[in-house]
Amino acid sequence: MGKGMFFSSGKQQVYQLFFIQIVLIIVMGALMTYGPEANVNLLKNRTGEHGRKHIKKPDTNPLLVYPNVHVMIWIGFGFLMTFLRRYGQSAVGLTFLLGAILVQVAIICEGVMNIQKDNKSYLSLRSLLSADVAVATPLISMGALLGKTTYMQLVFMGIVELIMFTVNKYVGEHLLMTVDAGDSMFVHTFGAYFGLAISFVFGMKEKRKEHHLEGPSYNSDIFAMIGTIFLWLFWPSFNSAALEGDDQQRAIINTLLSISASCVIAFATSALVSKDSKFNMVHIQNSTLAGGVAIGTAAGMMCQPVGTLIVGALAGLLSVLGYKYITPLIQKHLKIHDTCGVHNLHGMPGILGGIFGALMAALATEASYDYSLYEIFPARAPNSETKLAEMRDNYGISAGLNRTAGQQAAYQLLALVITLGIAIVSGLITGLIMRVLICGSISEEQKFDDEAHWELEEESLQGSKIKESNSCSNDQLPMGHM
Amino acid sequence: MGKGMFFSSGKQQVYQLFFIQIVLIIVMGALMTYGPEANVNLLKNRTGEHGRKHIKKPDTNPLLVYPNVHVMIWIGFGFLMTFLRRYGQSAVGLTFLLGAILVQVAIICEGVMNIQKDNKSYLSLRSLLSADVAVATPLISMGALLGKTTYMQLVFMGIVELIMFTVNKYVGEHLLMTVDAGDSMFVHTFGAYFGLAISFVFGMKEKRKEHHLEGPSYNSDIFAMIGTIFLWLFWPSFNSAALEGDDQQRAIINTLLSISASCVIAFATSALVSKDSKFNMVHIQNSTLAGGVAIGTAAGMMCQPVGTLIVGALAGLLSVLGYKYITPLIQKHLKIHDTCGVHNLHGMPGILGGIFGALMAALATEASYDYSLYEIFPARAPNSETKLAEMRDNYGISAGLNRTAGQQAAYQLLALVITLGIAIVSGLITGLIMRVLICGSISEEQKFDDEAHWELEEESLQGSKIKESNSCSNDQLPMGHM
Amino acid sequence: MGKGMFFSSGKQQVYQLFFIQIVLIIVMGALMTYGPEANVNLLKNRTGEHGRKHIKKPDTNPLLVYPNVHVMIWIGFGFLMTFLRRYGQSAVGLTFLLGAILVQVAIICEGVMNIQKDNKSYLSLRSLLSADVAVATPLISMGALLGKTTYMQLVFMGIVELIMFTVNKYVGEHLLMTVDAGDSMFVHTFGAYFGLAISFVFGMKEKRKEHHLEGPSYNSDIFAMIGTIFLWLFWPSFNSAALEGDDQQRAIINTLLSISASCVIAFATSALVSKDSKFNMVHIQNSTLAGGVAIGTAAGMMCQPVGTLIVGALAGLLSVLGYKYITPLIQKHLKIHDTCGVHNLHGMPGILGGIFGALMAALATEASYDYSLYEIFPARAPNSETKLAEMRDNYGISAGLNRTAGQQAAYQLLALVITLGIAIVSGLITGLIMRVLICGSISEEQKFDDEAHWELEEESLQGSKIKESNSCSNDQLPMGHM
Repeated sequence: MGKGMFFSSGKQQVYQLFFIQIVLIIVMGALMTYGPEANVNLLKNRTGEHGRKHIKKPDTNPLLVYPNVHVMIWIGFGFLMTFLRRYGQSAVGLTFLLGAILVQVAIICEGVMNIQKDNKSYLSLRSLLSADVAVATPLISMGALLGKTTYMQLVFMGIVELIMFTVNKYVGEHLLMTVDAGDSMFVHTFGAYFGLAISFVFGMKEKRKEHHLEGPSYNSDIFAMIGTIFLWLFWPSFNSAALEGDDQQRAIINTLLSISASCVIAFATSALVSKDSKFNMVHIQNSTLAGGVAIGTAAGMMCQPVGTLIVGALAGLLSVLGYKYITPLIQKHLKIHDTCGVHNLHGMPGILGGIFGALMAALATEASYDYSLYEIFPARAPNSETKLAEMRDNYGISAGLNRTAGQQAAYQLLALVITLGIAIVSGLITGLIMRVLICGSISEEQKFDDEAHWELEEESLQGSKIKESNSCSNDQLPMGHM
Repeated sequence: MGKGMFFSSGKQQVYQLFFIQIVLIIVMGALMTYGPEANVNLLKNRTGEHGRKHIKKPDTNPLLVYPNVHVMIWIGFGFLMTFLRRYGQSAVGLTFLLGAILVQVAIICEGVMNIQKDNKSYLSLRSLLSADVAVATPLISMGALLGKTTYMQLVFMGIVELIMFTVNKYVGEHLLMTVDAGDSMFVHTFGAYFGLAISFVFGMKEKRKEHHLEGPSYNSDIFAMIGTIFLWLFWPSFNSAALEGDDQQRAIINTLLSISASCVIAFATSALVSKDSKFNMVHIQNSTLAGGVAIGTAAGMMCQPVGTLIVGALAGLLSVLGYKYITPLIQKHLKIHDTCGVHNLHGMPGILGGIFGALMAALATEASYDYSLYEIFPARAPNSETKLAEMRDNYGISAGLNRTAGQQAAYQLLALVITLGIAIVSGLITGLIMRVLICGSISEEQKFDDEAHWELEEESLQGSKIKESNSCSNDQLPMGHM
Repeated sequence: MGKGMFFSSGKQQVYQLFFIQIVLIIVMGALMTYGPEANVNLLKNRTGEHGRKHIKKPDTNPLLVYPNVHVMIWIGFGFLMTFLRRYGQSAVGLTFLLGAILVQVAIICEGVMNIQKDNKSYLSLRSLLSADVAVATPLISMGALLGKTTYMQLVFMGIVELIMFTVNKYVGEHLLMTVDAGDSMFVHTFGAYFGLAISFVFGMKEKRKEHHLEGPSYNSDIFAMIGTIFLWLFWPSFNSAALEGDDQQRAIINTLLSISASCVIAFATSALVSKDSKFNMVHIQNSTLAGGVAIGTAAGMMCQPVGTLIVGALAGLLSVLGYKYITPLIQKHLKIHDTCGVHNLHGMPGILGGIFGALMAALATEASYDYSLYEIFPARAPNSETKLAEMRDNYGISAGLNRTAGQQAAYQLLALVITLGIAIVSGLITGLIMRVLICGSISEEQKFDDEAHWELEEESLQGSKIKESNSCSNDQLPMGHM
């Protein structure tokens, strides 16, 4: 019956998918146009010497960083989630679909926040890059729900989440004037707790036992490492994507050091808590990356190598301990099932990152940062004309709110708390709607199985009996299932 | 006997391979030298301040884009074609070999077209980048023939095809002065129909039935997604590779939007036409990319977001419908077998791209493009001194042919028709030569099987019987074969 | 008993791993700080026009090249070594761990060589890039030992090796003033012979026979191709990483041509020496890359296309012949087991590269290089004020040692010999310590088996008997083992 319901709503989901793309075309058509750097008819941007045109100030930074972040979103997240033995096609396929829809939604969300005088918003490489970063948020939430939803539930979740993400980021960045260069708070913490809140709603009724398909196979674990390594490699680009000049270089250095330390400590902790001092693939695939999350907020700050290594090491430790001890507790007592363990990779390390950012903000002085202090923390810039004049004239610094270091740190913590609040509350509401809405649903036996979404080849050729014995010899199902 | 013939010509193919590389060395030695930006002895290119030398105008664009296009050609095409259950090593291996030979051939072809006063041609990053783009053409043709040829047949095909590609591109770009930034016509349409023409020649005699190895396995479908995603991610680089400044930025934006829309619509259409509203891996691996092909010609034009999204969506729709309805018809009635379905990914979307480019050319006015019109469509620039003088002096615009928008559009369509004509005719002739030439051939039972090209490990260890039962349990052969 | 010893030392290895990361944090804290381009408080580096700050001379080169080299180290080396049928998780996982530790060690090693007046060393993108290149060295050595060591043995080896690497590079670059742009000598030759020396020590006692897990499976061979192709694609970045301007462009062109020729000739030679003229995956995964190694030293020199193609072709030929004929001899007579065949990919092609570099140095004249000669070979610059003055004032060339071409070539060869000497002697000593030290050891039956390092899923579910029959049907163990 559940199956019947699912199939009957299958066609509806298809129509919804067409409908969404058509709406995106209409909204994009009404709202977006090329920004000055991508627009052909602005001759003032060009010089004509020697028959070649040049934009006067070509901002090559996004061109450098964009391909790397692009790889992280689709290859990184997509393959990281292929670790389940029978859900690899869905992991990479649904990341693909979800990413393609949500990158358009994210462009529109950012566009709405930046409408120009002519009622249009501007498209540029910079906005494509921001959209990629934003898309990471719902993909993190997807990790908590992996294998337990229809694709249309994920699409619905992603659209709502990007709207709430935009609201939260606006509150944090513009109203509270806080700093979160690598998005520890706005992307990682938000995405993790939003997804966990939905998983809480989904799990309220049922009594969970280990699903026979919820585990890796030998090859699926190697496929997942493609995702892990690409994420690990390009995390410095992610954390420095919004920065430039020395801030960008520092963010790259900080992230490389932090994520290296988290990798080493994740390996060590994994062997420490595992049987026979061996490594556990789940830890290696995820906790090695925790240092990238934890250095996010402070990526552009003067953490010094020692500070960034310590925060990375702590993140690796915390993340593995989370997988080993906290996830089982959360599942048992809060009934929150977290397929990929996003709480351990994005949730706790994200909070750690937010707190570490506040700490670094509390320690930031003009003595150590010089006038750059007012570029990194714009709210700390003086608001009195006397003090500002020289800085503005010589270094282009704008008037701020004259905050002290302590005040800035307090605002940083406030942004973290607000992020948690908005994520959890809007996640709960989104989860409730997802259970009611006509996006279909996945029955217990369809969970973690590519068959729910894909026309698998062997189906048509051999029938389900052969398939099962095959996937058995191939992917090591537990004996009981045979 | 067929087997005997194949093995007897095996050694010959090896000698041919050595011979080809030796010829390439000789021709490259006679023809090519370092271009000014890569040549050490041109002091005029340098300034010597502070002990560091700088090229005056370092063209960093190719450095930015080149690695991405490089990944598309070898990882993208190579892994996209690993989808067959028993042909993965050949897919990635033969792409590797073919690419390494043809990139040298493409450099020579372009060199021949650009011989300098000293009878040498110049090598630069730009020429390596152009060579990579050119190599895509025979790799597309290879998709139509995958699993049905010897490697030497592919090498022969690739060399001939690159020569014809160069001729066709010269006709289109220089004689007809048409625009094809992302090579919808010169690469995609040409490559697809050239390959299909060869497949037509190959299939004339035989009576095809479904081959037992012509299908994916669970893991081979995931390997193929590595190719798909990298192609999808870096397509904006491909389409903007030959552009700079705002044109480049616009091409990146247009391609990202178009390929996102085609991804969403390909998923939706796949579920629409499949049983139980599920997705089909063949569609997802290929049709999601059709938007990149279809926006190619117009990538640098002022399509506006709404235009580019619509053409991408149409391409995704057309491509899936092609797989579902048109490919079977072509195979049945025209006897053209198309292993990867290049007609659906490159053929029809390429034609759509050519037509859309002509449409955009017809709509281009000086009002909307300003003087950039004459940079994007050089043939539209005025040829009278009076009108040209100011543009030339201020913006470096050269004299053109004074074409109207309608004329430019007509020339665009003419280039598309000529491309189709040259591709089909030269493909047919190449196919006929390939059947006669001593490049070996693949017998029916060797088709789609890595054993034709590779010393497979299990062979030596266990004999063919074990191997077959293994690959069976592993890769789900149809029952009949067991 | 061997097993017992291994497990008892498991916990110790974990503590050692924690200890190493803590030491790295302390040393990094004491030694390293942000370099000027990454340091926030140096206003002199900035201009403040229009409210945006700019480093005066942003060195974007490392930003361009760094991501590519990063991919080579972790994806390239990691996946290249996944070719063994039951050691894929260790290959990619231990590369991950080793890389994360050693990149920190390499930063410290380079830091120690460049201590500034304030007793600190500077971190910059440039130093991260150098560290990545250095890390390649122990990863090459790991290839010789793959499957035969504990992870802590590799970590110990890597730390010692990086110290010796730094000493050797200092001798070669600073004392002997030799050129090795792409590190044919300092990375490839050094890494290969250091690893082979250790393998010699490891193999002295035992009588080797073919291990039942020492071979690929169908899928593991495809995973390995991910590594091969990414290495092949980004090798031009590796060889040009330390160069700029026209030198960089030339190194990219030279490397692309050389590695293309080695790819074609490796395919041809593989088919020539194999049964039935088929290709052998081991050759294709490795020897195709030999051209990148062999052009390394001379990458920035004026080799001309023809020279670089010839050296690449020779490297491909030499490498395949090495796999076919030399490796078995070395194993039989010298008792050196070389799991990945690093002697064929890095050892012999590295020596070839060193010799070719010396040859090119011998041929370099001011006539062909102009004053660039003294930038590429600083020791050849005149030391007399009269001759130097004009060059220094106009082109920033520093005083050198007034070497002749022949002298420079002799020094190049001397550096190669010293590299071989230091690598072999320090490798032998390191190997002896590794056998004695408490880093654990791998017993004969644990070799080439992921079970030595990983909590494999099926273990807990099904017991070892099922697992074995499964991996059997999946990965084709030899009959005898069943």
